Amino acid sequence: MKRATIIGAGLVGSLQALFMAKRGYKVDVYERRPDMRKLNLGGGRSINLALSDRGLKALKAVGLQSAISQMAIPMHGRLIHMADGTIGGLQPYGEQGQYINSISRGGLNELLMTEAEKHEHVTFHFDTRSLDIDRDKNEVLLENTETHEQFTTQADVIFATDGAFSAVRGSMVKTDRFDYSQHYLPHGYKELSIPPAEGGGFQLEPNALHIWPRKSFMLIALPNLDGSFTCTLFLAYEGAISFDNLRTEAQVKAFFKEHFADVVPLMPNLVADFFGNPTPSLVTTKCFPWVYGNKIALMGDAAHAIVPFYGQGMNSGFEDCSVLDELATELNEDWPTVLDAYQHSRKPNADGIAELAVRNFVEMRDLVADPFFQLQKQVEKHLHRRHPERYLPLYTMVTFSDLPYAEALRRSQVHDSFFIEAGQDLMVMVANNPQEGASEALMDDWVAEIERRY
Amino acid sequence: MKRATIIGAGLVGSLQALFMAKRGYKVDVYERRPDMRKLNLGGGRSINLALSDRGLKALKAVGLQSAISQMAIPMHGRLIHMADGTIGGLQPYGEQGQYINSISRGGLNELLMTEAEKHEHVTFHFDTRSLDIDRDKNEVLLENTETHEQFTTQADVIFATDGAFSAVRGSMVKTDRFDYSQHYLPHGYKELSIPPAEGGGFQLEPNALHIWPRKSFMLIALPNLDGSFTCTLFLAYEGAISFDNLRTEAQVKAFFKEHFADVVPLMPNLVADFFGNPTPSLVTTKCFPWVYGNKIALMGDAAHAIVPFYGQGMNSGFEDCSVLDELATELNEDWPTVLDAYQHSRKPNADGIAELAVRNFVEMRDLVADPFFQLQKQVEKHLHRRHPERYLPLYTMVTFSDLPYAEALRRSQVHDSFFIEAGQDLMVMVANNPQEGASEALMDDWVAEIERRY
Repeated sequence: MKRATIIGAGLVGSLQALFMAKRGYKVDVYERRPDMRKLNLGGGRSINLALSDRGLKALKAVGLQSAISQMAIPMHGRLIHMADGTIGGLQPYGEQGQYINSISRGGLNELLMTEAEKHEHVTFHFDTRSLDIDRDKNEVLLENTETHEQFTTQADVIFATDGAFSAVRGSMVKTDRFDYSQHYLPHGYKELSIPPAEGGGFQLEPNALHIWPRKSFMLIALPNLDGSFTCTLFLAYEGAISFDNLRTEAQVKAFFKEHFADVVPLMPNLVADFFGNPTPSLVTTKCFPWVYGNKIALMGDAAHAIVPFYGQGMNSGFEDCSVLDELATELNEDWPTVLDAYQHSRKPNADGIAELAVRNFVEMRDLVADPFFQLQKQVEKHLHRRHPERYLPLYTMVTFSDLPYAEALRRSQVHDSFFIEAGQDLMVMVANNPQEGASEALMDDWVAEIERRY
Repeated sequence: MKRATIIGAGLVGSLQALFMAKRGYKVDVYERRPDMRKLNLGGGRSINLALSDRGLKALKAVGLQSAISQMAIPMHGRLIHMADGTIGGLQPYGEQGQYINSISRGGLNELLMTEAEKHEHVTFHFDTRSLDIDRDKNEVLLENTETHEQFTTQADVIFATDGAFSAVRGSMVKTDRFDYSQHYLPHGYKELSIPPAEGGGFQLEPNALHIWPRKSFMLIALPNLDGSFTCTLFLAYEGAISFDNLRTEAQVKAFFKEHFADVVPLMPNLVADFFGNPTPSLVTTKCFPWVYGNKIALMGDAAHAIVPFYGQGMNSGFEDCSVLDELATELNEDWPTVLDAYQHSRKPNADGIAELAVRNFVEMRDLVADPFFQLQKQVEKHLHRRHPERYLPLYTMVTFSDLPYAEALRRSQVHDSFFIEAGQDLMVMVANNPQEGASEALMDDWVAEIERRY
């Protein structure tokens, strides 16, 4: 029986275990931490993620689409909370019926592990960390952190899904000709919480992603099944408006009252959460090659950790799994060839979504409240409605299609430079009267010109 | 007595020891390797470097200018060996009296160590490696590699000059919010040698840097005091023309005969050198911050390893020392302030020379044989002669001035875009008849326009 080893039982590792189990492999998954399903997480933080089409496609491929839909809350668009306390209209993410899904990170991870374990030959080994790549044997050296027993994997193929600070990648960084970068944003983040309403139910519109854009910083909120919202404050570490200047209870209260007045009454635990929770940083990591010795492949955050602003961290990791699976079928599980095709296929797309994710931070904290940005969004909506196959706005390409990220980025650059030239007056005309003949003729011309530039 | 610790006794560490000794510090230098002065290096490889104005300025500041001039061979320009075996005319690096210096890396390093040791309170400790930063004590944890004794530095200020693969930086990479990148070129290099002529003397023109530009690869040669030349072949690792395809004696001989026919008779040890010497890679590393805990500062390659094509690796490291020394004087040795000023002053310049060094590889292996490139060089020479203070060609700014590298890069971008617009016909006129009235008027206009664009 062929054997696959997976290092890391997070979201991507657990999904990859399912893909390899479906191929009939004996799968061993090694995870540094204890089994999260056995820990008492009462009172722990509830982290949620935005699951969209690329992630769903991968989950569907392992038969989990319906199980997932039970766990997710659809978010149809952005709800913008202005500085004066008013709430703007919903900015839809796509067309009717298109939405992203708020889902519990822990809940999804547990589901994937439990589903994987239903396969007879899948075994999760917890409390086991990777020490180094065994370069002679082309395997990974592991250690049981309880017994301190050390042993070497024995596998036909090894997947390192051990996250943004991957120990396996750490071993690869020390080898010759391994490109690597880690780049931090000047911002950190703080998780906060809005509990359910008394007697149950949501205190804000549940089917939306809430944003309080404040130019250099922002607050967001995503719904949870229990009626609560998980909120995240993104703020610079240093400077005039920064975590550095939020050191006392009075400072925190004054800051929230000034900038997020409408949310303060909904956050009874604001101060305790603020000082009890850590302030993690936001890193983008890139590396290449992703494959060591034709046998050990990095996947997910281990290969390409990105900032969270496009909601594509998990989705891109899941897409790694589905693309790799397609290549494995196409290339008859000739793993050296499969892994090489995988890394060359995925690397430009990982770089693309990394850039888009950083750019989306600016969009979310600033541009969502910008008139020209809104005008372009309006025009793009009409272009997409008139030419649904020929013109896709960037958000649609990234979130509601499986067009390669690099291609989505490239096309969006064509769009942006086109609209700078197109002229605001004509854009206003199209936005206001999309069904008039002049607007329709103009849109047809525009799409033809944009296609020419692609 | 105030104490300075230096990690790494290479070129930059040894020079920094001299600077700190001059300040009256007790200086301890810890070096992972044994004392190179006690090793029998007979038969070892002779590596040379190009020392230019920035390095000389730093050496002058510690009183070593005259000692250095005894060890160096002036190189006034590039001598181009064409593919057909002919040698082009000398392409001067600058004006009359401007040259770079070929100097032995080992010889210079030994001189710096010996000079530093003449100071009573400077001590070199060999066979001592750094294990990690001691975060609690804000010191460095060291280990004697012979006795395995471990101990912690005790210093007012610590300089990590432990090279491109710096262990101290390796500790900093693991801390939060530390930006880092390592990027490799697709090329590696191989050191080869041209021995002195029989009976002594040089087999090639000694006062030049020899280049065999072959577009995707190149060979260079720098003179040594003993009449030999150290040659370096820069070639891709993989591809049609690559180290990958030079695996047999016959392949190596055929490759050299085809591309470097004129040099083959001068290299009796070609095959032995080729297969006896390693094929190192070419890395650019960047990081920030350069300072840890207000006390431990990265310098030289530890902070900014660059590729060798501008001959500025050592020079930029030496400039780190002289800039830091000026800041220390200016800021009264208030080290936290000095180190912070140092890192913010040097970081953009390190990034600038890193980019210039990569670009110069293209210039050396390709553009030196390109007609438009030569035309622009000609025009720039005349502009510089007519306006010596107002117009400096890029090579002059980098090599024969101490203009910040970042500023040199910025100005060179102005130059390049200007000459693309200037028109080839006018450039030919200026190049051919620089002293005619029309050319002089044009040059005056050009310099005024270029200054406007700066």
